[in-house]
Amino acid sequence: MKSDKISEAVVRRLPVYLRYLNALHKREVATVSSQELGQRLDLNPAQIRKDLAYFGDFGRKGIGYDVSYLIEKIRHILKIDQQINVVLVGAGNLGQALSNYNAYLKDNMKIVAVFDAFPDKVGTKINTLVVQPMDELEATVKEKNIRIGIITVPDFEAQHVADRLIESGIGAILNFAPTTLKAPANIRIHATDFTTDLLSLAYYLEDGKEETQYDSE
Amino acid sequence: MKSDKISEAVVRRLPVYLRYLNALHKREVATVSSQELGQRLDLNPAQIRKDLAYFGDFGRKGIGYDVSYLIEKIRHILKIDQQINVVLVGAGNLGQALSNYNAYLKDNMKIVAVFDAFPDKVGTKINTLVVQPMDELEATVKEKNIRIGIITVPDFEAQHVADRLIESGIGAILNFAPTTLKAPANIRIHATDFTTDLLSLAYYLEDGKEETQYDSE
Repeated sequence: MKSDKISEAVVRRLPVYLRYLNALHKREVATVSSQELGQRLDLNPAQIRKDLAYFGDFGRKGIGYDVSYLIEKIRHILKIDQQINVVLVGAGNLGQALSNYNAYLKDNMKIVAVFDAFPDKVGTKINTLVVQPMDELEATVKEKNIRIGIITVPDFEAQHVADRLIESGIGAILNFAPTTLKAPANIRIHATDFTTDLLSLAYYLEDGKEETQYDSE
Repeated sequence: MKSDKISEAVVRRLPVYLRYLNALHKREVATVSSQELGQRLDLNPAQIRKDLAYFGDFGRKGIGYDVSYLIEKIRHILKIDQQINVVLVGAGNLGQALSNYNAYLKDNMKIVAVFDAFPDKVGTKINTLVVQPMDELEATVKEKNIRIGIITVPDFEAQHVADRLIESGIGAILNFAPTTLKAPANIRIHATDFTTDLLSLAYYLEDGKEETQYDSE
């Protein structure tokens, strides 16, 4: 397996597969076809087969994929078969909302610390985590072996926070601040910019004001 | 201009260009080169020139792009030179956080209504908007000519909310619920799934525990 040959688009689809496979596993479904995956996830079955073939010969013709085995393989590929600790910096509304997603993050990935620069926020509790002051950031990242940082601070603070996270030894950042972060090439940064998503959606709106032709039944 | 020929990746980069161009405009910078854009946005200048060339011959050799003109063009391409009204369904922490981004959404795109199914939430204020009950959804979407919906409800409610939004005449949805939504082909759905983003980041973590080689100076 040549991990550096796999496109980001494929890597981003793997957790989507995993989510549905986990749901199937919960319902005690043993096998699933690429057709069913495709229908449920609105993806071409051939695309799904191609994606999964990157990682080995998982499927069996006429039977489909073994759900448990595929879950195990994807978890391994995504490296979430080990515990990965995550830190969240910025305990505002967005930070609080994200920390609630811990429940979805089964898969050994977990937000284990929350930081905020505002004295009013420090010491308050978000779910089970107590918000820590920024001067404890570096020590906590090292102590808890934190590998991923989530940035939910205002845009003008984001680069400074990113620099501190990177210096503490973090390998990847999920950035929610509406600004482009600079980082060395070995640090992976994904931006989840709500405003960018929303503005790019407008492009796809149909012109004119005609009623949408859609029968919901 | 053949709008259906432009890849989603390009469309998604346009708001990123726009954000930086707006910042330049505010600082009264009149022209910008693709080199400078590339350096600031961590993109290959040739890529930027190619992206912008889709829409016409904007740049001038040795001078660069006229900032005001490029802003105007991108706004037109993204169709945000008209007012686009947005509705938010789900007034929890995430919904509240997103409604705070209205300030970033200059560009004639604006969240104009917020809905929630919980009686406790209805009637409360988020910024300047009063949270409305779900039974007013369809009428409000039509009345306020709302074209885009943001879904920040729990996953098990998301499809039902999407169906109602689509039936009300909405053309595009930004989905924050961790589930894949079904919609007719003429409805554009972008998913912003935090858990997917985060799980795919783990893939890029370097193996082993060695210290990151990075000099922040």
